[in-house]
Amino acid sequence: MSDFARLEQELDIALAAIPLIDPHSHINPLAPTARSLDDLLGYHYYTELAHSVGLAKDVLSPEVPPKETVRQVLRHLERFDNTVQYTWFLHIAREFLGFDGSRVGERDCDALWDAAEKVFSRPDWEAEVLRRSNVEKIFLTNDFDDPLTGFDTQRYVPCLRTDDLVFHLDKPTVRSRLAEATGIEVGDAYGLRRAIGKLFEHFVRHDARACAISLPPRFSPMPVSSDALSSALRDPDQSAVRAMGVFWMLAEFCRDFRLPFDLMIGVNRGVYQHGVYQGQDLFDQRTSLILYADLFNAFPDVTFCVSILNSGQSQELVAYTWIFPNVVTSGHWWYANIPAFIETDLRARLQAVPKTKQLGYYSDAYKLEFILPKYAMYRRVLARCLARDFVVERGWSVAEAVELARLLLRDNARRIFRLDGTTGSVLVNG
Amino acid sequence: MSDFARLEQELDIALAAIPLIDPHSHINPLAPTARSLDDLLGYHYYTELAHSVGLAKDVLSPEVPPKETVRQVLRHLERFDNTVQYTWFLHIAREFLGFDGSRVGERDCDALWDAAEKVFSRPDWEAEVLRRSNVEKIFLTNDFDDPLTGFDTQRYVPCLRTDDLVFHLDKPTVRSRLAEATGIEVGDAYGLRRAIGKLFEHFVRHDARACAISLPPRFSPMPVSSDALSSALRDPDQSAVRAMGVFWMLAEFCRDFRLPFDLMIGVNRGVYQHGVYQGQDLFDQRTSLILYADLFNAFPDVTFCVSILNSGQSQELVAYTWIFPNVVTSGHWWYANIPAFIETDLRARLQAVPKTKQLGYYSDAYKLEFILPKYAMYRRVLARCLARDFVVERGWSVAEAVELARLLLRDNARRIFRLDGTTGSVLVNG
Amino acid sequence: MSDFARLEQELDIALAAIPLIDPHSHINPLAPTARSLDDLLGYHYYTELAHSVGLAKDVLSPEVPPKETVRQVLRHLERFDNTVQYTWFLHIAREFLGFDGSRVGERDCDALWDAAEKVFSRPDWEAEVLRRSNVEKIFLTNDFDDPLTGFDTQRYVPCLRTDDLVFHLDKPTVRSRLAEATGIEVGDAYGLRRAIGKLFEHFVRHDARACAISLPPRFSPMPVSSDALSSALRDPDQSAVRAMGVFWMLAEFCRDFRLPFDLMIGVNRGVYQHGVYQGQDLFDQRTSLILYADLFNAFPDVTFCVSILNSGQSQELVAYTWIFPNVVTSGHWWYANIPAFIETDLRARLQAVPKTKQLGYYSDAYKLEFILPKYAMYRRVLARCLARDFVVERGWSVAEAVELARLLLRDNARRIFRLDGTTGSVLVNG
Repeated sequence: MSDFARLEQELDIALAAIPLIDPHSHINPLAPTARSLDDLLGYHYYTELAHSVGLAKDVLSPEVPPKETVRQVLRHLERFDNTVQYTWFLHIAREFLGFDGSRVGERDCDALWDAAEKVFSRPDWEAEVLRRSNVEKIFLTNDFDDPLTGFDTQRYVPCLRTDDLVFHLDKPTVRSRLAEATGIEVGDAYGLRRAIGKLFEHFVRHDARACAISLPPRFSPMPVSSDALSSALRDPDQSAVRAMGVFWMLAEFCRDFRLPFDLMIGVNRGVYQHGVYQGQDLFDQRTSLILYADLFNAFPDVTFCVSILNSGQSQELVAYTWIFPNVVTSGHWWYANIPAFIETDLRARLQAVPKTKQLGYYSDAYKLEFILPKYAMYRRVLARCLARDFVVERGWSVAEAVELARLLLRDNARRIFRLDGTTGSVLVNG
Repeated sequence: MSDFARLEQELDIALAAIPLIDPHSHINPLAPTARSLDDLLGYHYYTELAHSVGLAKDVLSPEVPPKETVRQVLRHLERFDNTVQYTWFLHIAREFLGFDGSRVGERDCDALWDAAEKVFSRPDWEAEVLRRSNVEKIFLTNDFDDPLTGFDTQRYVPCLRTDDLVFHLDKPTVRSRLAEATGIEVGDAYGLRRAIGKLFEHFVRHDARACAISLPPRFSPMPVSSDALSSALRDPDQSAVRAMGVFWMLAEFCRDFRLPFDLMIGVNRGVYQHGVYQGQDLFDQRTSLILYADLFNAFPDVTFCVSILNSGQSQELVAYTWIFPNVVTSGHWWYANIPAFIETDLRARLQAVPKTKQLGYYSDAYKLEFILPKYAMYRRVLARCLARDFVVERGWSVAEAVELARLLLRDNARRIFRLDGTTGSVLVNG
Repeated sequence: MSDFARLEQELDIALAAIPLIDPHSHINPLAPTARSLDDLLGYHYYTELAHSVGLAKDVLSPEVPPKETVRQVLRHLERFDNTVQYTWFLHIAREFLGFDGSRVGERDCDALWDAAEKVFSRPDWEAEVLRRSNVEKIFLTNDFDDPLTGFDTQRYVPCLRTDDLVFHLDKPTVRSRLAEATGIEVGDAYGLRRAIGKLFEHFVRHDARACAISLPPRFSPMPVSSDALSSALRDPDQSAVRAMGVFWMLAEFCRDFRLPFDLMIGVNRGVYQHGVYQGQDLFDQRTSLILYADLFNAFPDVTFCVSILNSGQSQELVAYTWIFPNVVTSGHWWYANIPAFIETDLRARLQAVPKTKQLGYYSDAYKLEFILPKYAMYRRVLARCLARDFVVERGWSVAEAVELARLLLRDNARRIFRLDGTTGSVLVNG
């Protein structure tokens, strides 16, 4: 092992000791862990890749017994055992399910299924996964009408997800869910403002710490007059004006309620029409953060935590974060959550974005078990970047490099989302 | 030599032992090898780079004696001896022409010219180059009216090139070539369908294994009605509708004849008006695979082998291949065929695209001699990626890494293009 | 230290011995060095990053005593001590101000301030900085009405900056400055041509060696008729036509006066409206060099030295330089001037752009002191690329690699800008 490899390893071990704040996930706090192997291999990364190499969609239907579905996914897994997504599952199998092979596939189906049955039903399983993943707090993605009850909001931090409000308010189901949640039948901009105000009150009362949304590549936020928004609320065809108006109103509420706004920029929904559930979305690299200039200018008091789907925008994100006090970088999202892209994107952020303005990573996980392998992957890349560009190149000590990492893995999230009771600005205290 | 360098070398040597399938070239099967040094240095990579550093275009005219042209190109070669294109020629000179220097230039003109005369006229030269390049099958780029006779289609695999049909059907010469080849004077969509059907029959009868086309950055395939296409066939000004209609019809024939469709996306023709032959084309990085979403959705049974000219689209290609079952990655094309870009693009593909859905490389060569240096360059990069991201990072054995490479260099092409008599889907057998 | 690290170091030391030509800066030749610490920390890189992490803009106002401003910037500096911009200042403090710590911050304010007062007032300071930076000639950025007197034009090479003429000719102040400088009240295209002719005569008489401009991402040069330009000169609303017409005219003068034209492509001005001075500009990655195809075609005799702000265009720049004889690459500009981006961009240029067509780097500095740390950063990356891709990969000697670097750091600039009295074409002599 070379000196450099040893240094990388030393850093990797040191980083693993930092308790994590995971600022974005899709965990259901009422069922945070997997109940069966199906809950792991039903993750869209596996179903969509299996479909991509030939798995018929109907194998995933509820009529098929879960164990049979799992067996089919495992069979196809062998065709993408080169991918990093595969390694997440392998890591879970080895870490949590007692698997000791180096490749996993169809022949392991029975053993893994049985191990999962046993392990996942342990009464202390949730606590065990949290402990072994070294994660302290995990942000949720809550529908606007989520009651937010029945779980520990200090562990599972609520976050108001607003895609439905911005993009689907023309749908009767969304309108009636909104009426149900707020007691207000929205007919115009004024009613909408009252309704959304109630949602924010509800969320903040239940310790929500962020508002979040995913946005298509061409979305460009602009203010909309109350009259125009009222008109768009009555006319289903005015989806663009309605989306802009609702979005802008949400930014105003983020300002008033002092909530950071997570912008997840760049996804086109339903591109592959015949894709599996959650495996239909892609992107268009022709997008720019310049589309958000008006927003960033208009809300200097709102912290925008920006995730990009398109790594080709990585330099833009670096530059916009460097210039705008209210913009911070946030994680490595979805199709950009691959070591090759993370390394390129992370190196630039570490070299040119203030260390206090980087939310290093989030798991995006649906089940707690995925936090461990995904963060492990990220920390490996982070350790390499720190080793090369800071310890070797600049002569930093390992301890100094670890302190930098601690900001990315924990302390920036605590400050930016006011988890430690501070002001929630991007400013460091003191 | 470090342990890592030794590992890279071990891999590189092992990869060189894999017999190649070269799925895209411009080889003329009736004259596959160079006849003189002029055939090598007349390759557009050298004429355009020489012109770029000062070579006057008229030096390349047929009136100038070939050896004088070669001398001038060699003189200018010294000004771009840093480029990887230069190293291809140096590799050829050393491997095939007995050259033993480390730099090649004007002073070597006579010696190289004479060596080429001698070597290239050997009766077994074609077999010798094929053997030393370790290439088993090479795909051609055939005009639609190519008779496809006089050569071994098991060695040189026909491929129907369709640029003329899609983009130049308004030209009388193209129409008359089509009439000549099919016996059909195309007047409307119906006639065109009959004519193209005949072309596909002819090509498939002669063992064609793919249909191919190069496309400009803004092209976006959409279905066109028969009436609209008929109208566009009569009106030279309706080039956009005509191109879309013909293209869509070709995709239908690919489906019906079970031929993969090679899409080479992103070239603008004739950008540098005063450029040398084949040295005028460039690109516009503002393009997206989302332009192909309708096509990929409409033809689930056609395998689209996608090459991109713009490395900035590399993450898109990874994501679209990961999601769409009928999309596979194909090689590293033209301006992206540089180690710096190959390494970035390849790392991401290896980490996130199923291993069965990657056509690793093609030579794009006009003469067989270029297969050796171009594949050598690619394998060096591939060996490095495998060493770092699979052997070191994941603990794979060298043998496992070589098996992954074998898919990229050989087995995927055999399966996808049905060279082994299998079904031609992207699915792995059994 | 590994063999590779030793090789990098050996190269780095050898490169430092090459006397530099710095082909783009904002140095004021009448006050080329810093006068106080404020001149260093007032550099927009520090004020904008400090503002980005919380520094209030009013701390930067002229009413605040400079030392207090400096103290506040230093205090905020600690929040971006991970950035490469921070390392430039640290390098200066250590090299020029006797600082011997490894981190610099608020507690060092007094000591640094006093050291700066002492050092910067030395009578030989300018000569000392130039000597220690090993820089021979530095290009300026001169307003069109600069008298160009009072300094040594062999050391500080004038360069006609033309942004005002192209984008602000509707402003009365610009018109009156032009009238003042040329004695011509511009009323139409004819008058403008006479006026600009006088500017070129003035600049060339004072040894100017380039014309330069920065351009927004959507700018696309096209020829404009005299009538259309005359009309646009009278109508403030026709800014697009006016900009295109004036720009095209400048290119004609570059041709006639044999001046290379520096194109700095991609900046949007004033994106962050509340930003600090010079800290408001950003970019839109959706741009392409195809927008310049007509220009490059129309002026084969003008050398265009192209800088791009968006690294996402890096492959385009490589390809356009490879194809167009009159295009050369120029440096690593602004938001792309970060080791992570430089390394990616530089590797590709070294591998695919003729060595005679690369202007390696420029400082963009406002004060001479920044030339040293910025070039040091660049040379580190250059040494790494040369070590890996040329010495190790291709077996070049260190001396050969240094000769390649000498072209990038010095000789290409001398030839392209005719600093050595040669023809100024991109052709190598002999």
